[in-house]
Amino acid sequence: MNYVVNRSLPRPDSRTKAIGQAAYVGDMSLPRMLRGVILRSPWPHASVLNVNTSRALRLPGVKAVITGKDTLGVTFGVLATSDKLMDRRALVTDKVRYIGDEVAAVAAVDEDTAMEALALIQVEYGPLSPVYDPAEALREGAPLVHGDKPGNVSKRHVVKAGDLEAGLRESAVVREDRFTTHPEAHSPMEPHVTLAQYDATGKLTVWASTQSSFFVQMDLAKTLGLPEGRVRVIKPHVGGGFGGKSDGMDSLDFCASLLSMKTGCPVKIAYSREEELIYTRRRHPLIIELKTGVRKDGTLAARQCRALLDGGAYNSWGPITTILSSNWNLMPYRMTNYLYEGIRVYTNKAPGGAMRGHGAPQIHFAVESQLDMLARDLGMDPIELRLRNALEAGDLNPLGFYIPSSGFRECLEEAARRAGWKEKWGKLPPGKGIGVGCSGFVCGAAFPVRPTAAAFSAARIVISGDGQVTLLTGAVDTGQGSDFTLSQIAAEELGVPIELISVVAADTDLTPVDMGNFSSRTTMLAGNATKSAAASAKARVLEGAADLLEAKAVDLLSQEGRIFVKGSPERGVSFVEAVRAAYRMAKGQQITAEGVYVPNPRLISPSISFSVQIAEVEVDRETGQVQVTDLTSAHDCGVAINPMSVEGQLEGSVYMGVGYALSEELSEVDGQSIQSSFTDYHMPTVGEMPRVAALHVEVVDPEGPFGAKEAGEGTVGPTAPAIANAIFDAVGVRLVDMPLSPEKVLRGTGS
Amino acid sequence: MNYVVNRSLPRPDSRTKAIGQAAYVGDMSLPRMLRGVILRSPWPHASVLNVNTSRALRLPGVKAVITGKDTLGVTFGVLATSDKLMDRRALVTDKVRYIGDEVAAVAAVDEDTAMEALALIQVEYGPLSPVYDPAEALREGAPLVHGDKPGNVSKRHVVKAGDLEAGLRESAVVREDRFTTHPEAHSPMEPHVTLAQYDATGKLTVWASTQSSFFVQMDLAKTLGLPEGRVRVIKPHVGGGFGGKSDGMDSLDFCASLLSMKTGCPVKIAYSREEELIYTRRRHPLIIELKTGVRKDGTLAARQCRALLDGGAYNSWGPITTILSSNWNLMPYRMTNYLYEGIRVYTNKAPGGAMRGHGAPQIHFAVESQLDMLARDLGMDPIELRLRNALEAGDLNPLGFYIPSSGFRECLEEAARRAGWKEKWGKLPPGKGIGVGCSGFVCGAAFPVRPTAAAFSAARIVISGDGQVTLLTGAVDTGQGSDFTLSQIAAEELGVPIELISVVAADTDLTPVDMGNFSSRTTMLAGNATKSAAASAKARVLEGAADLLEAKAVDLLSQEGRIFVKGSPERGVSFVEAVRAAYRMAKGQQITAEGVYVPNPRLISPSISFSVQIAEVEVDRETGQVQVTDLTSAHDCGVAINPMSVEGQLEGSVYMGVGYALSEELSEVDGQSIQSSFTDYHMPTVGEMPRVAALHVEVVDPEGPFGAKEAGEGTVGPTAPAIANAIFDAVGVRLVDMPLSPEKVLRGTGS
Repeated sequence: MNYVVNRSLPRPDSRTKAIGQAAYVGDMSLPRMLRGVILRSPWPHASVLNVNTSRALRLPGVKAVITGKDTLGVTFGVLATSDKLMDRRALVTDKVRYIGDEVAAVAAVDEDTAMEALALIQVEYGPLSPVYDPAEALREGAPLVHGDKPGNVSKRHVVKAGDLEAGLRESAVVREDRFTTHPEAHSPMEPHVTLAQYDATGKLTVWASTQSSFFVQMDLAKTLGLPEGRVRVIKPHVGGGFGGKSDGMDSLDFCASLLSMKTGCPVKIAYSREEELIYTRRRHPLIIELKTGVRKDGTLAARQCRALLDGGAYNSWGPITTILSSNWNLMPYRMTNYLYEGIRVYTNKAPGGAMRGHGAPQIHFAVESQLDMLARDLGMDPIELRLRNALEAGDLNPLGFYIPSSGFRECLEEAARRAGWKEKWGKLPPGKGIGVGCSGFVCGAAFPVRPTAAAFSAARIVISGDGQVTLLTGAVDTGQGSDFTLSQIAAEELGVPIELISVVAADTDLTPVDMGNFSSRTTMLAGNATKSAAASAKARVLEGAADLLEAKAVDLLSQEGRIFVKGSPERGVSFVEAVRAAYRMAKGQQITAEGVYVPNPRLISPSISFSVQIAEVEVDRETGQVQVTDLTSAHDCGVAINPMSVEGQLEGSVYMGVGYALSEELSEVDGQSIQSSFTDYHMPTVGEMPRVAALHVEVVDPEGPFGAKEAGEGTVGPTAPAIANAIFDAVGVRLVDMPLSPEKVLRGTGS
Repeated sequence: MNYVVNRSLPRPDSRTKAIGQAAYVGDMSLPRMLRGVILRSPWPHASVLNVNTSRALRLPGVKAVITGKDTLGVTFGVLATSDKLMDRRALVTDKVRYIGDEVAAVAAVDEDTAMEALALIQVEYGPLSPVYDPAEALREGAPLVHGDKPGNVSKRHVVKAGDLEAGLRESAVVREDRFTTHPEAHSPMEPHVTLAQYDATGKLTVWASTQSSFFVQMDLAKTLGLPEGRVRVIKPHVGGGFGGKSDGMDSLDFCASLLSMKTGCPVKIAYSREEELIYTRRRHPLIIELKTGVRKDGTLAARQCRALLDGGAYNSWGPITTILSSNWNLMPYRMTNYLYEGIRVYTNKAPGGAMRGHGAPQIHFAVESQLDMLARDLGMDPIELRLRNALEAGDLNPLGFYIPSSGFRECLEEAARRAGWKEKWGKLPPGKGIGVGCSGFVCGAAFPVRPTAAAFSAARIVISGDGQVTLLTGAVDTGQGSDFTLSQIAAEELGVPIELISVVAADTDLTPVDMGNFSSRTTMLAGNATKSAAASAKARVLEGAADLLEAKAVDLLSQEGRIFVKGSPERGVSFVEAVRAAYRMAKGQQITAEGVYVPNPRLISPSISFSVQIAEVEVDRETGQVQVTDLTSAHDCGVAINPMSVEGQLEGSVYMGVGYALSEELSEVDGQSIQSSFTDYHMPTVGEMPRVAALHVEVVDPEGPFGAKEAGEGTVGPTAPAIANAIFDAVGVRLVDMPLSPEKVLRGTGS
């Protein structure tokens, strides 16, 4: 029986955020603070021949201007395990590679003055031939985005498992389809913003809107030539990241820091919505050639996938995306005969990076759409086809995915039942349709992103002399509520009310290392580290209680603020009495303990979550407009630490999935973005949101803390294919190119 | 051989302070921050019959007004081990007890508006008879400042040791003199200031200019009815305390917090210089009746002391001052036959509290002046008399002072030699004179001030995976440089360069408990805790090195960033390599350790510092003006961790001692202060400062970290008597009433 976890307790930050009390970097101000802005390239591809800053420097109110020449010129990147993977500079030194590449930065007394100074910086460019199309970029003789990357190849990844040809031979039906997906913007409500203060002691303090304080610290230290101990990165409240703030340092962090070092004043830089939307990273567009063979009984027999990832100008997380795009092909179904080739290419556009789901929504769109086609080819119910192949607890697939627990089958059955699948599929009136999509997702990954001696996740528990508990964690809450999830885990393990827990998070001077918020890792990795730290701290408190109760510590239970003898609940002391006794026994030494969690390096992830979504749509045959009316989302995230938070994640990911499926598209002409604001980059409005039925299928995961798995990312994968399959069910149009826009629907119906 | 301690390394905060970069509470600003001001009583003693705030609340811009009725009405006080000792309320509920007592507080959009609102608060007072004179306050029928304190006695302390009468009978000379001392203001450059933010999560965060974050936290929790874990107190840079910020919570901390709770906005309250000067605590004025007997050979044979402490309206530290005033009587000389009676009385004036030296400058003025008279009565050199009675290492006096080390004798001899005592004493031209004063002082005290399970001092060392070191300490640097002193101790113990150390200090959410900055406790108590934490953390690093070097950890030395085999310095690894190895050996678990220090409770203090000062003066016989021309200060603070910092302390305390001796006087008429600013409260100007020769007598204290003792407080004691004795030597006038003003000198010379 759990007392604190698996309860829908309200998050303490909800109210502060609702009433505007929570402080984001944008709310912060320091004495003598300057504002910084960044000069960006207007050219998609050009040599930078000369930058003249003298006129800008003469403008009253301007305090400093920096260009690539003021930097050490070193490269950096989120994947820092090898120099070859790091291809970006904080300010360009040789040439620009996309419209928006960072050329210079200004610090001035206010933002207007800084903007005015930008216009006074004279940059002499030597235009070079650009390349935009990923297939063209691969051709012999194409312009090279990076001189040292022949063929513009950022990453090539090939996987072979089983016997593809044999599998195809056994197949009753083999389909070969080509799918394309579009770039999507993360669009956090809070664009990137940073505040840097370098003081005369030689210490740099940066308040950054980031998904990883530790990455930002490492990158700033490297690019500024400072010891890591001289760089402190603090994450205040963050207004969403969705992968867009998971790279570590961004140009603004560097520029604010260097401008602060030059001026001796704090410097704040905030990206505008336009900068955030079109110059930062986006979800990779993919061209997916997918060949799948199915036996007569519906068993998946073979798959071949060729993926071409349009990487834009820099690596970012892209090499990992190329690998993950293979992994998602084998998720969440059994498959043994498999061949994958993924190639990520450089082009003169804004870089592709990690975005919620990290490669999965693209691959799932292809795979789950094709499964729908295969089911129809076989004359089989698409849900039946999926059940036939579902991964089960105990499975270990050829790529190294081990399944410690699975509620996937239950998710399929429960979603179908609740959505009325049998009564609706193929039977709805014209213009109405129903479709299904599925996904499986990792709970943190076992690969190292950074070379560091520290564990992937560590947490510290400190219990003060009056029984208050502080959880120190490097884990990064960007609004999803992980600080409170970890608090619930700590309270449950310690056996104390949630009110006793305070959290100090993501401050590199104060908290144990945690790599940050990506790969849906926090609940599993930081959660296990927290649980382990709490267990060790509790051991000392139990010793205190044992002394008071004249019992053995192993015979005691800590629950709801009380410690008592198992089986004799009347023989007990309060938690705080036990704490005081433990302090006395150690001459007043603080009660504190650290826990770490290190995933099994032989597995891709400690566990896998599962998600099934059934979409119902109404298609307007006059306009091609698709309205998703209902979305039934069944989710196996193990034991939900906070069911209300999990529901929030489910609803949020449906929102993101609907936007991805239907309308959120970044497009460009000659490297120049068409969109520049939320007026033309269309995120769904409240009227476009479907009714969401969130079904929680609870299984107890043996690896997760109190049985929990991830809940925020995998759920974004099934939405687009469920909608595409529902559109087919409604109007018989099979859309293979995203987004599923009215134009494409109309073209399909021949209207 | 020490590498980091006992070196005059520059403090990293010096430069940030010099260029204005260091942030004090006054520099801080938060979104929607309000300003608060406090309404004070214009009456010295009156019932508060009614407070009407309605007109003030109607003033546009006023956000909240609070009075005693808005509080829980609970008492608080720095001495919180007993309810009887706590006699103050954050806002008065029944009556006011001195001009300045806090009646109400206002929060408004700016300070002007808040001040305007103060004038609109209508308070109906019922005036009561006041009492100002401490002797009168003791009389039968005197008005009672506190109804539950008969006879206005705040504290009575009697000590008896040996046989007074026998000692007096053995004496060749017995003197009986009466001395009086005056109230002195702490006058930190930064008056009290606080910024409080209560947020919707129910957490109160307070940035306070304080000498004890933990006291403030405890007091706020108590008076606001919050759990301690919901109150976080952070000490930013502090511009001096000198004991005036050592009480814990002050009225402004409470008012800012409650006003923030009422308004939901952050509230800042800053005392004006006038408020700081005349309404906060001050050095106790004492009336000292001193009787001392000396044998013919100069041996001190007996002492009787009666001390009457004018306590003002509240206890503050006063009961402790009453005890300490006894202790200082037996310092730094041997004395066995002793009788002391100290009485602290309440009067209707601003309270007396702790101030640098805490009772010692008053008692030393009397004792050291009287020793000068006794020496002259015996026909003995005053330095000879002192040498005859000097405490030595190994001594344990009747009050429980144990002397683990003493350089007192060397201080006397060295100061006399350097000042040219033999050539000058009694031999200078008319109007010029020379005099000596001495003191001994505690290095932290063993008595508990607060009931807490935590150790008196604890420190934590965290070593990150790249070898950076963070020292977490609750110790409070108020400008004296203790953060850097502790950094040097940590670096020395770890064997790393000082640059690797970062300090996080005095933040109740983050740092281990340390009671704070008083009783000259930081170097001894927090220093030993730091050393112990560093030693434990080092042990893990040595294990890492041992693994790499295939050696035993006990055979290794860590010095200057390198760990090597004792006797084979070429067989070594860098500190950071060893750290990485230690991380690997523990699956990436952070290297961290805590150390605590608990003084021996049977002794008053772990050790004693000694100080000798020789003053030379020129007395203008026309005006009575005294110019201290030279001051030779010899000091035994054990091994100076940072000799340059110690010199700073010596010079600063001479400055404070000269001001105390000659000009810094708070005076009042009918409870109303005469002074209100630095124009009429006269601190010495640069021209009034003597030339200071600082002599450091180095002994290695067995208890202190690396042999160190206190260096900041004992040195303020000898200055006034040295000057008084020099005035006598110059013009034959014996001044027994402080300050040693021109009027008194002229009166003495009969001019």
